[in-house]
Amino acid sequence: MKNKKKKIVIALGGNALGNTLPEQMEAVKTTARAIVDLIEADCQVVIVHGNGPQVGIINNAMTEYANTRHSHITPLSVCVAMSQAYIGYDLQNALREEFMNRSIPVPPTAAMVTQIRVDADDPAFNDPSKPIGQFMSKDEALMAAGERGWVVKEDAGRGYRRVVASPKPKEIVEIKAIQAMVEDGNLVICCGGGGIPVVRQGRHLAGVPAVIDKDFAAALLAEKLDADMLIILTAVEKVAVRFGKPDQQWLSHMSVDEALQYCRDGEFAPGSMLPKVQAGIQFAESQSGRTAMITLLEKAGDAIRGLTGTTITQ
Amino acid sequence: MKNKKKKIVIALGGNALGNTLPEQMEAVKTTARAIVDLIEADCQVVIVHGNGPQVGIINNAMTEYANTRHSHITPLSVCVAMSQAYIGYDLQNALREEFMNRSIPVPPTAAMVTQIRVDADDPAFNDPSKPIGQFMSKDEALMAAGERGWVVKEDAGRGYRRVVASPKPKEIVEIKAIQAMVEDGNLVICCGGGGIPVVRQGRHLAGVPAVIDKDFAAALLAEKLDADMLIILTAVEKVAVRFGKPDQQWLSHMSVDEALQYCRDGEFAPGSMLPKVQAGIQFAESQSGRTAMITLLEKAGDAIRGLTGTTITQ
Repeated sequence: MKNKKKKIVIALGGNALGNTLPEQMEAVKTTARAIVDLIEADCQVVIVHGNGPQVGIINNAMTEYANTRHSHITPLSVCVAMSQAYIGYDLQNALREEFMNRSIPVPPTAAMVTQIRVDADDPAFNDPSKPIGQFMSKDEALMAAGERGWVVKEDAGRGYRRVVASPKPKEIVEIKAIQAMVEDGNLVICCGGGGIPVVRQGRHLAGVPAVIDKDFAAALLAEKLDADMLIILTAVEKVAVRFGKPDQQWLSHMSVDEALQYCRDGEFAPGSMLPKVQAGIQFAESQSGRTAMITLLEKAGDAIRGLTGTTITQ
Repeated sequence: MKNKKKKIVIALGGNALGNTLPEQMEAVKTTARAIVDLIEADCQVVIVHGNGPQVGIINNAMTEYANTRHSHITPLSVCVAMSQAYIGYDLQNALREEFMNRSIPVPPTAAMVTQIRVDADDPAFNDPSKPIGQFMSKDEALMAAGERGWVVKEDAGRGYRRVVASPKPKEIVEIKAIQAMVEDGNLVICCGGGGIPVVRQGRHLAGVPAVIDKDFAAALLAEKLDADMLIILTAVEKVAVRFGKPDQQWLSHMSVDEALQYCRDGEFAPGSMLPKVQAGIQFAESQSGRTAMITLLEKAGDAIRGLTGTTITQ
């Protein structure tokens, strides 16, 4: 019984959530308005969110607490799980309020704890590059490296930070439950923070100290849910080539081939627009008729009407 | 399309989860075996769990971190949310492994972030009694009371602790999504730690510094799901009257009226067996044919076959 509405997976970035508790409480209101706009435009929306600042705070707090107490370090994977519930809770509430503000019946809503399997031999594990947690002095960093096996790197003159791998998502462990919820027409929040990263160890799924890019997680989810569209939110309304140069050009559309060429040409900043375009390509090329859209949160409603944003299609 | 299997809500207590990260990882294996035993006995199981030690650790860590940084205190309600994901993640994995160990196809499984509404004028708010978080000196306790409005109490000569209210659960905010998941035959983990406690503030649901008793939350859930049985797990195989006395008597069955009388007679320890019996009464008296069962985790399988445990029915 396939749902007839346009099915959209939306990946919320940092500015949709803010950096602190009070910021998040405010930011989710704007986010909820944008999402309910899409729902009022007769789309079925599935929500994926990032967790950068939140997982950093949680990981810092749990690590410092364990150090003070000489007790067990909370693995990063558990911190990702915690961030899913923290953010899911706030998002759920903001959505509920926004539906009520518009006198729309609140749909059944679920924030689901989601694990995502990665490959233990993903090359990203050989080159941890995503900084998380607090800044440390060189001495602290070396001690953490020795005692806990952390990989630490100097971060732009601001001190040392732990860096973790950002492997590619391979399998959404709870996909069947998510599919069932979505097919029933529920409003689902899942794969938060890119999902809890786990690897297979025989029958066990073991958490790994990594953070999966939430845009790639959303692309995989959109494929598995057979979504019509993947919306990747970012800080600009459209993707540009020659970004910041005098001949900068905003793009309304890229074919997969064009987008791949731009990537090869180094048009997009690694760690910023590049992974977003790559995630968009992954979804668009997975099947004809699938559209990836990159735009600003506040413009998502206009974007699905074709008024702005950058689309990627086959 | 009502599911024909016997529908059971099971409330997992502290010893089903352990007190620390490594303990929890081990404890959930035993818990998973007991739950899969029930599923193999052709029951549909919905899982509620406590979070006492876990929410204490999280609350301590987040509070100390905020104090060190002079940054925002993470509300207790957010800490409850975090504990739901942390425990849900471990439970999901342990269940998955147990199904695989028995060569049973792993059913779609979902740990759902759940809010539970309480009344802002619940009398429990006038008498906070549930200790959470770290022990403090008298000076620290007085400072926390002044600065953060915490209610603090001296705890059995071991120092001061924050105490919070334990109000009665009134409404499971995400009940529709939970019902949909359960009716579809999914294995659902929800209302963890008694649910994230919230009160209505106009259209907003505001988190409150409280901890809902998970057995009462499970009783409400069992009612709303029209379950056949509520299993409340505890540290003994059966409920006893004259507990610890020479004429102690283990009970196989209580009618609601008998159970109420025993409660009035002070047969059950407050904060221990009393709330479990009260939660059982609440479910059993909600409709004829509903059975509450109080027993030991490892005996749950025997209990549903009528071999042990204490049942409460109308």
